[in-house]
Amino acid sequence: MSTTPPTFHEMWRDLASIGRDPDSGGYRRYAWTGADADCRAWFQAQAETRGLTYEVDRNGNQWAWLGDPAAGDAVVTGSHLDSVPDGGAFDGPLGVVSSFAALDELRRRGVEFTKPVAITNFGDEEGARFGLACVGSRLAAGQLGVDKACELRDADGITLPQAMERAGYDPTGIGPDPDRLARIGAFVELHVEQGRALDLTGDRVGIASSIWPHGRWRFDFRGEANHAGTTRLADRRDPMLSYAETVLAARREAELAGAVATFGKIAVEPNGVNAIPSLVRGWLDSRAADQQALDTVVAGIEKAAREYADRHGIDLDVVRESFTPVVEFEHALRDELARVLGASTPVLGTGAGHDAGILSASVPTAMLFVRNPTGVSHSPAEYATEDDCVAGVAALADVLEGLACS
Amino acid sequence: MSTTPPTFHEMWRDLASIGRDPDSGGYRRYAWTGADADCRAWFQAQAETRGLTYEVDRNGNQWAWLGDPAAGDAVVTGSHLDSVPDGGAFDGPLGVVSSFAALDELRRRGVEFTKPVAITNFGDEEGARFGLACVGSRLAAGQLGVDKACELRDADGITLPQAMERAGYDPTGIGPDPDRLARIGAFVELHVEQGRALDLTGDRVGIASSIWPHGRWRFDFRGEANHAGTTRLADRRDPMLSYAETVLAARREAELAGAVATFGKIAVEPNGVNAIPSLVRGWLDSRAADQQALDTVVAGIEKAAREYADRHGIDLDVVRESFTPVVEFEHALRDELARVLGASTPVLGTGAGHDAGILSASVPTAMLFVRNPTGVSHSPAEYATEDDCVAGVAALADVLEGLACS
Repeated sequence: MSTTPPTFHEMWRDLASIGRDPDSGGYRRYAWTGADADCRAWFQAQAETRGLTYEVDRNGNQWAWLGDPAAGDAVVTGSHLDSVPDGGAFDGPLGVVSSFAALDELRRRGVEFTKPVAITNFGDEEGARFGLACVGSRLAAGQLGVDKACELRDADGITLPQAMERAGYDPTGIGPDPDRLARIGAFVELHVEQGRALDLTGDRVGIASSIWPHGRWRFDFRGEANHAGTTRLADRRDPMLSYAETVLAARREAELAGAVATFGKIAVEPNGVNAIPSLVRGWLDSRAADQQALDTVVAGIEKAAREYADRHGIDLDVVRESFTPVVEFEHALRDELARVLGASTPVLGTGAGHDAGILSASVPTAMLFVRNPTGVSHSPAEYATEDDCVAGVAALADVLEGLACS
Repeated sequence: MSTTPPTFHEMWRDLASIGRDPDSGGYRRYAWTGADADCRAWFQAQAETRGLTYEVDRNGNQWAWLGDPAAGDAVVTGSHLDSVPDGGAFDGPLGVVSSFAALDELRRRGVEFTKPVAITNFGDEEGARFGLACVGSRLAAGQLGVDKACELRDADGITLPQAMERAGYDPTGIGPDPDRLARIGAFVELHVEQGRALDLTGDRVGIASSIWPHGRWRFDFRGEANHAGTTRLADRRDPMLSYAETVLAARREAELAGAVATFGKIAVEPNGVNAIPSLVRGWLDSRAADQQALDTVVAGIEKAAREYADRHGIDLDVVRESFTPVVEFEHALRDELARVLGASTPVLGTGAGHDAGILSASVPTAMLFVRNPTGVSHSPAEYATEDDCVAGVAALADVLEGLACS
């Protein structure tokens, strides 16, 4: 390597303008769009400027290798570069930028690598375009069937393979990639924290214990469309009332169980100002530290919803649309991280899904979290201080040194 | 007139299939569309088969005249043929069909008309396409400025004048039509009841006293977008909670005041399953028997909403988007109807707007209601029994005889 690679600062600055909406100030980096292509070109340039071996796997995930990819027992780190709609700058990119910076730090330290090391950018982690999260890692790990993947469509009806092809990627090879995963000895993902646990304990960096079990349930409240001006209150079957009561019940049940429950998406028919709705459809997202707590919360919300619905003459259907059981990160790897970073490093559960959660079924996997002083995430206000980002890079470098240079 | 005109049954059957959606079973007869053109062609054919003088005024309203339109002191009856989205068969068409049937009945009775009589179909009463109700009558009565009317656009961006032109009507003359209104001595609109008052009293036909004052208010609850899986409940500023509490407060306040209040339309941003919303926008429709009651209800709802919003750290804006004061129908004409139909005929207020409400500012105006056994309106389930429709025609015939043949 003849030139000094870009610093953390320089990498961060290069990414800052890609896919940023000037009005909202948030990022719109959706899979296989122009903004995504710009992020991917940046990743490739980072690999090449460091003399790393660049490759794209059959599922469109990017890899930058130091050492022989085929040697096996590789230590891999990375995250993703795509975003939710109007997302923040840190969710995803912090992990990728920190990976390159940590590798640079290890080279500065003059360590001797005894294992191959790779940095990855997993495709379509947020699922903003096709509605399913972690598509790149799910495909590789065999957790998303090829048939299902080919049926994914964006809002314009474009399928995932069409979108990949238009972006210049060959979609014909998508699907499970067990040989590639078998060559990975450990995967570590660094991520900005999406809550305030580290802020509350006063730590810059934490280690993930588990990803909470979580699911999505669709609540369909069906009443009777009618004229909002002329229908007596006593004659109404207004599903908006049952919906509203259920929103409040969800908050109460989550508080009781120390869990979270959110109604953030709604669809109303006919959705007219002077019309009592015929249908109010609300989606519940709920997560808890363990399965039993989650079951308790959701059962409590559904029970309350049924009581409200019965009282107002409303028909209620509740459908579980998705569910992900708890992910416990590998204990040996977690303990190794704690050894390297110090026994006082906080070990935290998280309510968010990650590529690391998908890979954990196939590969020893761990996560590092960097403090988020407000806890805000999936919003332009998401951030971490410069000092904490630097501490995250140092921690990741320490972890990689412990894993790849022993 | 050489042939027998179509009976009520035949007219009803001819209209039944126009603009009916096969899936919902409801009507989609929006102004200046193909379904509207079919309704208008039907109206013209009804005029012609009865030897009435057919004309379209400058605002696109249809007229069928018996006698000299220029003579003055005309007795006019009618309603509208357009519908709300997935509306019922009766709201509008019952008044038009009953008008033709009542005229036929008077001719059968062999009465001598001493005044000109006209039947009307007012254009775009429901406002389903351009978002403003009673466009045809508002334009004629000078209650909608020409500039404003020309700015009305449908969901595809087509302006009202463009839509009229594409439907074969010349829009260049739209605007106030005081000469036409000055030639009307009385206007009577028959309409299916949109509540259950007549069902509760056991009467087939009632007389309108007034149209309740009503308005629309937009409530913007602004919080903070955040990750639904990772944001602690205590750190949330979730506007859906304040919205839900306000929906329930609206019901309570309306019950206390004997009024109605409805949140039937909502818009959420970003409206993602795993996102705490940044914005929940709800529209309140509220109506009451008098201005004071309405003011009390809306003030009560807004006060409650502000308390809830403050508690959750939510910013609240409340904007009144439209308001229509109480319409008292002319007492002399109302008393004349009661004399003709019998003193025991119920006199009712209504929460719905009508062309009759618009015209009442310019012309002595009255309304007749026909019993609606379920009170359901603006829905495919809207209906009146055959016997009640027949009673409505007879009542309208009696009223027209009293007004035009005295």
